[in-house]
Amino acid sequence: MDTEKLVDLLKEVIVDHECILTDNADLHSYSYDASFGVHVPDVVIMAKSTIEVSNIIKLANEHEIPVYPRGQGTSLSGGPLPVKGGIVLDLSKWKDKLVIDPGDMVAVVSPGVLTAQINNAALEHGLIYPPDPSSSHVSTIGGNLAENSGGPRGLKYGVTKDYVIGLEVVTPEGEIIRTGGRTVKNVTGYDLTKLIVGSEGTLGVITEATLRLFPKPQATQTLMVLFEDVVVAGKAITNILSSGILPSKMEIMDQASIIAVEDYQPMGLPTDVDALVLIELDGHLAAIKDELKQVIEVCKSVGSREINVAQTKQEEAELWKARKLVSPAIVRVKPTKISEDATVPRSQIPEMFKRLQQIKAKYQVDLVVFGHVGDGNLHPNIIADKRDHEEMRSVEKAVEEIFRAAIELGGTLSGEHGIGTLKAPFMEMELGEVGLEMMKRIKRSWDPNNILNPGKIFPEPGQRLVLTDD
Amino acid sequence: MDTEKLVDLLKEVIVDHECILTDNADLHSYSYDASFGVHVPDVVIMAKSTIEVSNIIKLANEHEIPVYPRGQGTSLSGGPLPVKGGIVLDLSKWKDKLVIDPGDMVAVVSPGVLTAQINNAALEHGLIYPPDPSSSHVSTIGGNLAENSGGPRGLKYGVTKDYVIGLEVVTPEGEIIRTGGRTVKNVTGYDLTKLIVGSEGTLGVITEATLRLFPKPQATQTLMVLFEDVVVAGKAITNILSSGILPSKMEIMDQASIIAVEDYQPMGLPTDVDALVLIELDGHLAAIKDELKQVIEVCKSVGSREINVAQTKQEEAELWKARKLVSPAIVRVKPTKISEDATVPRSQIPEMFKRLQQIKAKYQVDLVVFGHVGDGNLHPNIIADKRDHEEMRSVEKAVEEIFRAAIELGGTLSGEHGIGTLKAPFMEMELGEVGLEMMKRIKRSWDPNNILNPGKIFPEPGQRLVLTDD
Repeated sequence: MDTEKLVDLLKEVIVDHECILTDNADLHSYSYDASFGVHVPDVVIMAKSTIEVSNIIKLANEHEIPVYPRGQGTSLSGGPLPVKGGIVLDLSKWKDKLVIDPGDMVAVVSPGVLTAQINNAALEHGLIYPPDPSSSHVSTIGGNLAENSGGPRGLKYGVTKDYVIGLEVVTPEGEIIRTGGRTVKNVTGYDLTKLIVGSEGTLGVITEATLRLFPKPQATQTLMVLFEDVVVAGKAITNILSSGILPSKMEIMDQASIIAVEDYQPMGLPTDVDALVLIELDGHLAAIKDELKQVIEVCKSVGSREINVAQTKQEEAELWKARKLVSPAIVRVKPTKISEDATVPRSQIPEMFKRLQQIKAKYQVDLVVFGHVGDGNLHPNIIADKRDHEEMRSVEKAVEEIFRAAIELGGTLSGEHGIGTLKAPFMEMELGEVGLEMMKRIKRSWDPNNILNPGKIFPEPGQRLVLTDD
Repeated sequence: MDTEKLVDLLKEVIVDHECILTDNADLHSYSYDASFGVHVPDVVIMAKSTIEVSNIIKLANEHEIPVYPRGQGTSLSGGPLPVKGGIVLDLSKWKDKLVIDPGDMVAVVSPGVLTAQINNAALEHGLIYPPDPSSSHVSTIGGNLAENSGGPRGLKYGVTKDYVIGLEVVTPEGEIIRTGGRTVKNVTGYDLTKLIVGSEGTLGVITEATLRLFPKPQATQTLMVLFEDVVVAGKAITNILSSGILPSKMEIMDQASIIAVEDYQPMGLPTDVDALVLIELDGHLAAIKDELKQVIEVCKSVGSREINVAQTKQEEAELWKARKLVSPAIVRVKPTKISEDATVPRSQIPEMFKRLQQIKAKYQVDLVVFGHVGDGNLHPNIIADKRDHEEMRSVEKAVEEIFRAAIELGGTLSGEHGIGTLKAPFMEMELGEVGLEMMKRIKRSWDPNNILNPGKIFPEPGQRLVLTDD
């Protein structure tokens, strides 16, 4: 169907015609996300109600037009890219509902609400919404739900999916369903809630979510521990966890990350250590005092080089600043950051570090490693220049080898960023042919015309990793 | 196919022919579970390996013979009942693997391992497997996985599903797949792990599971609080949770439960109170001391009648004994216990109690209410005699009205017992036609010949609740 006719049909179901964008400049601003590739849609609709979404999808399904749901476009895996043209369904403007119910300890939210706003609203009632992706101040809950976003607090509190107890969803045929509800426990039939969260917009458009909240921990305590050997750091992490302590965060930075940060904004970090581990304890004040002692003992006993305990809230913030600066620091070196999130079982972290160093040497790539080490969710980041096609070919090979290493060590392609377009070529490597086929069966049975976010998760025949925008 | 021919075919794929049961007495011992109905299978196989399960299911799929996976048969909803005859696949004898890996903080288990054994094995490493269904000393992890079992600790720690990170599964076509893995975070494709857990054996047979373990809390503290009004108890529960305290357990017993226990085994409980709430705090010793003070303050401030704090481990056990005696106490009154688990949002607990009392009066049934009040997961139990068909008709009506009340109050048919045969007739009431259809699509796409646990979850045309064995 030509765009003009499509727009005419859309105007019949969209009340506010200004929510339909067809201008070239507008279309281009919806053609990319925080990963790779530029794909211009035919039309963008800023949807603001369930009935609108339902009507748009019914129309799209009838005419077999691809629909690409989108939040703020912070995806690192290509989730919202309109790779087959069609309609981009921008849900980021739909933010009218953010209700905290302290009695039921839930939040009910519209898809366009920013994730950090949910936590802020919960805090007013002495509650928290634990999932804390680094992008939470700019990313929408809708995007977080589609990708099942994680974050540092995942170690103790789990990821987005662990907090979703109910959804309103528009199916790929435009029908409106409700999954789960307002109760924490629910075993009535298949768990569609947890199937849809993390399905990257391929099984339905989430139009409302009911999220669990948790009591706010009384206090937090941060410490920074330096290690001359990443294997020793790995041992410390395992020993802390098996001593009965579950920190709220355990983040690692490798030597390359530390050097990048010191070059960017000197903080007095020693650049000759192999690893820096940031630990946050949370909970009751007396408990974390005691746990702090134990953590220090464990670290010393395995042979840490230096331990720095934050004495004030300001010192706590200072320590976390180092971790926050990694991303801005590394993109100063080269403009293109390939941010992976291959995840391995905790016991394999030292081996994964070794493999990453080998890959770095083999392909001569600028690799830095940091991330959520407590749950094995590392972030190997390669810094490159995407205009340099030769360099990008090496990067592609290095990335593929990173995935292969993670899977060989019993891990997974993605801990929290999702598959999208970028990791689709590697799905079968992890899941096997039948495993992938069972996922495809669900997709086909729900979306027979393949209109919802087509071109994602499932590899196209012969698809390979391409880290350029061309 | 006649049974003789089926057994001949099975003998070709089962190494140990003594694992094939066809004797009438044997078949009858597999004809029931802890719910209602007697259904005799054609043959029982005690399977002990993945390849055996795969071969059995391939055979069954080819010849369109129903297969009913079964653990210890403690299901309260009819999960393992062979309602269409065929093969019962007894997995309770397959218990060879129970490996605790303290480094990765996981347990890897065979389906026939008893749930309590997993927790006991974890404790040896200072870890716990938190899900604690009341039946955990007799029920298998395979059954718990199929039904997504809960338990008192669900309030703080969640249910079975929250602890499953990887599965080996035989599909309805006999293919072997692995879902998830050994990492806590995994967003590679659809979450088949959480889809299969709780699917009541209709989407696959779980042949191995990887379960998360948690650090063992340092200490526990139990207290019993008596209330003259269940509404006041509800207020106390909400206020405790919103004051930043998350107890590990919060169990309620209504007056009828207390009276039943006192009649059965006098413990000195006051029989004139409206509700008794048992609370367990766990965590760091200093933290729970402090939390105990706060809980007492909250209870007093809303107007509790009496608070009894356990001073020793023995007193703690004494207090919990009251709760444990409810089930044996009530079946002494009449032989048939209809144990429901309708669950409502926490704020609706007082209203649900009111509705339950109205239903009790309307249908003149022996109704007692107890359960996991902290998460709204009540257990309204009706005591009757299933041989009295007239009484059972009233019970059926009462049960239906309990489901209706739970759904009206924003709750669900089942918090932890599953749908099975018993609640299938009410599925559409909660899910709507399209919601149910989306579940059916998954079932059809995975199990085109409908051989895995047919007759469960999804209602047959015109199916209604029948609480007799005929």
